[in-house]
Amino acid sequence: MTDMIQPGATIGILGGGQLGRMLSVAASRLGFKTHIFEPGANPPAGQVADRVTTASYDDTDALADFAASVDVITYEFENIPTEALDLLDSVRPIRPSRKALAVSQDRLVEKAFLNDLGLKTAAFAAVDDATDLAEAIAEIGTPSILKTRRFGYDGKGQARLKSADDAARALADMAGAPSILEGFVNFTHEVSVIAARGTTGEVACYDPGENVHKNGILDTTTVPANLTAAQRTDAVLLAAKILNALDYVGVLGVELFVTPQGLIVNEIAPRVHNSGHWTQNGCAIDQFEQHIRAIVGWPLGDGKRHSNVIMENLIGDDVDRIPDIARTGAAIHLYGKSDAKPGRKMGHVNRITGPAK
Amino acid sequence: MTDMIQPGATIGILGGGQLGRMLSVAASRLGFKTHIFEPGANPPAGQVADRVTTASYDDTDALADFAASVDVITYEFENIPTEALDLLDSVRPIRPSRKALAVSQDRLVEKAFLNDLGLKTAAFAAVDDATDLAEAIAEIGTPSILKTRRFGYDGKGQARLKSADDAARALADMAGAPSILEGFVNFTHEVSVIAARGTTGEVACYDPGENVHKNGILDTTTVPANLTAAQRTDAVLLAAKILNALDYVGVLGVELFVTPQGLIVNEIAPRVHNSGHWTQNGCAIDQFEQHIRAIVGWPLGDGKRHSNVIMENLIGDDVDRIPDIARTGAAIHLYGKSDAKPGRKMGHVNRITGPAK
Repeated sequence: MTDMIQPGATIGILGGGQLGRMLSVAASRLGFKTHIFEPGANPPAGQVADRVTTASYDDTDALADFAASVDVITYEFENIPTEALDLLDSVRPIRPSRKALAVSQDRLVEKAFLNDLGLKTAAFAAVDDATDLAEAIAEIGTPSILKTRRFGYDGKGQARLKSADDAARALADMAGAPSILEGFVNFTHEVSVIAARGTTGEVACYDPGENVHKNGILDTTTVPANLTAAQRTDAVLLAAKILNALDYVGVLGVELFVTPQGLIVNEIAPRVHNSGHWTQNGCAIDQFEQHIRAIVGWPLGDGKRHSNVIMENLIGDDVDRIPDIARTGAAIHLYGKSDAKPGRKMGHVNRITGPAK
Repeated sequence: MTDMIQPGATIGILGGGQLGRMLSVAASRLGFKTHIFEPGANPPAGQVADRVTTASYDDTDALADFAASVDVITYEFENIPTEALDLLDSVRPIRPSRKALAVSQDRLVEKAFLNDLGLKTAAFAAVDDATDLAEAIAEIGTPSILKTRRFGYDGKGQARLKSADDAARALADMAGAPSILEGFVNFTHEVSVIAARGTTGEVACYDPGENVHKNGILDTTTVPANLTAAQRTDAVLLAAKILNALDYVGVLGVELFVTPQGLIVNEIAPRVHNSGHWTQNGCAIDQFEQHIRAIVGWPLGDGKRHSNVIMENLIGDDVDRIPDIARTGAAIHLYGKSDAKPGRKMGHVNRITGPAK
């Protein structure tokens, strides 16, 4: 098992939410222990991890102790402070690497990176003030959408512009944060590819899933997606291109708009992705285990699917439907969160719809 | 959700081995926390549980604290001391119930119970001393097998008798423990049924798996088993009969010998069972989740299988094959045990062989 991190080793995970929780469970299946680093008290991942450190990302002692206690470090979210990464990186390998984080932490850098690879994105322009925004609107037009360059997720930090009249309000919504104006993409539907790359450069992709959003949050992912064979191939090839360009190790989520002119990359996430949760009940090796296999240097699963699946997110008080859902034979995945606040991801359900192919 | 224990509650598990570990993971999927009670230090289940109590079964304070901290109690093994059960039972419900434990803790009681239900077992007789054994051999004949009535597993506490000449040696092997002589059953193969019963009396069975043993320890389980339609039905009906007679709540494993004269019950285990591990990769709801659903009063999965599976146990240094197995796309399940001692169950592998039906 040369270059493979051995069972019994400890995997450090930055972030104790549901993704950290499901990574932790997958790691345990392969015989690894996990250590969660999370500023918030009682994180969902803590309930299934061997060890939890509750500390902030500016607590250098806690970060150093955490890094020293693990064999490799990964993360469930991309907005980790740079200073914390600098410290951790000096003690243990961080996978996926800093480069992937740097690209995906900033929408402007990410779009430039994708365009440089020859991949299509929405038209975009940097916006730091009203003058930039006026110029960007003149260039890109409306409808368009203004987004903060950093720290956005699930539709937060975004403002739509129906016309140039919305400029002042949209800019106010950004609260002074460096932003990006993105042109409107006339797409028929959205799909995502969950792809992985191992330490040896090996690449594996799951078949794309088709995503439907509700109130800016992923509602369902259906596999297989409605795609032509050519689009399916394109989706896999472009995901592999991104992985190789980043010398990536781990699972990456790529959201794609399907348009008559081809696939347009919406965004990439350097981690396991909500739209890949279907793999838990559709594949022998799911995205969480695939990510763990990649970061510990093990051979990857080939992305093979045994069943077709519809994944549905349980948001806020959707969890009140659990008694009914439990009667349907669907696979239930709850995250151990105590408060079902509106908009909060509380769990998801995977319904097997039939054998693959 | 009346009568359903709600997500967020804590499930107490007696025993921190691999079964407790996999029960713990399944409980977390449904939003439950787990608390493991285990005398041994650093139990495998502790790595994935919310809480672990390390204490012996005669530590009444620890037992009382444990019981008070959980909402329902279950177990991964049947040989829990009666006094501990008495204490726990007075604080929180134990599921499956004491009756199931009493029956399955003693091979003599178990066989009498099964015969009373009209189910076939091997011929048997109680053996406490040399006189009993001589009478038992006269009645049952040889080849036969002498077993301790209690605390046997994986072929331990057993001695084969090829002829009456082996009587003294076999009895010595029992070291004075109350024993049972079991007649030889001329079977073609062994199958097991993993069945479950809920708090409302609802029963669900997985399709039987076919077991092959090596050195007295389960080696592989293959699903589907080689059975006629009539045998398949018989297997399910007799499992349901046992569950109902015990007013059982939880998952039960029933090992059956297949003979030209029909199915003969070898033994029952009031818990999740090694021969049910295939369900983790063959079903949306596996035996571990099924057990948790039963003991918290949730609707059961229907036992449906999406894929055919061969489960292979990894015993002792079989784990050295992990690098090769990881390349095959099989699902790996390791138990987090540090020492690969000979005969020790270190993990298992599930290979999907195709879609069910």
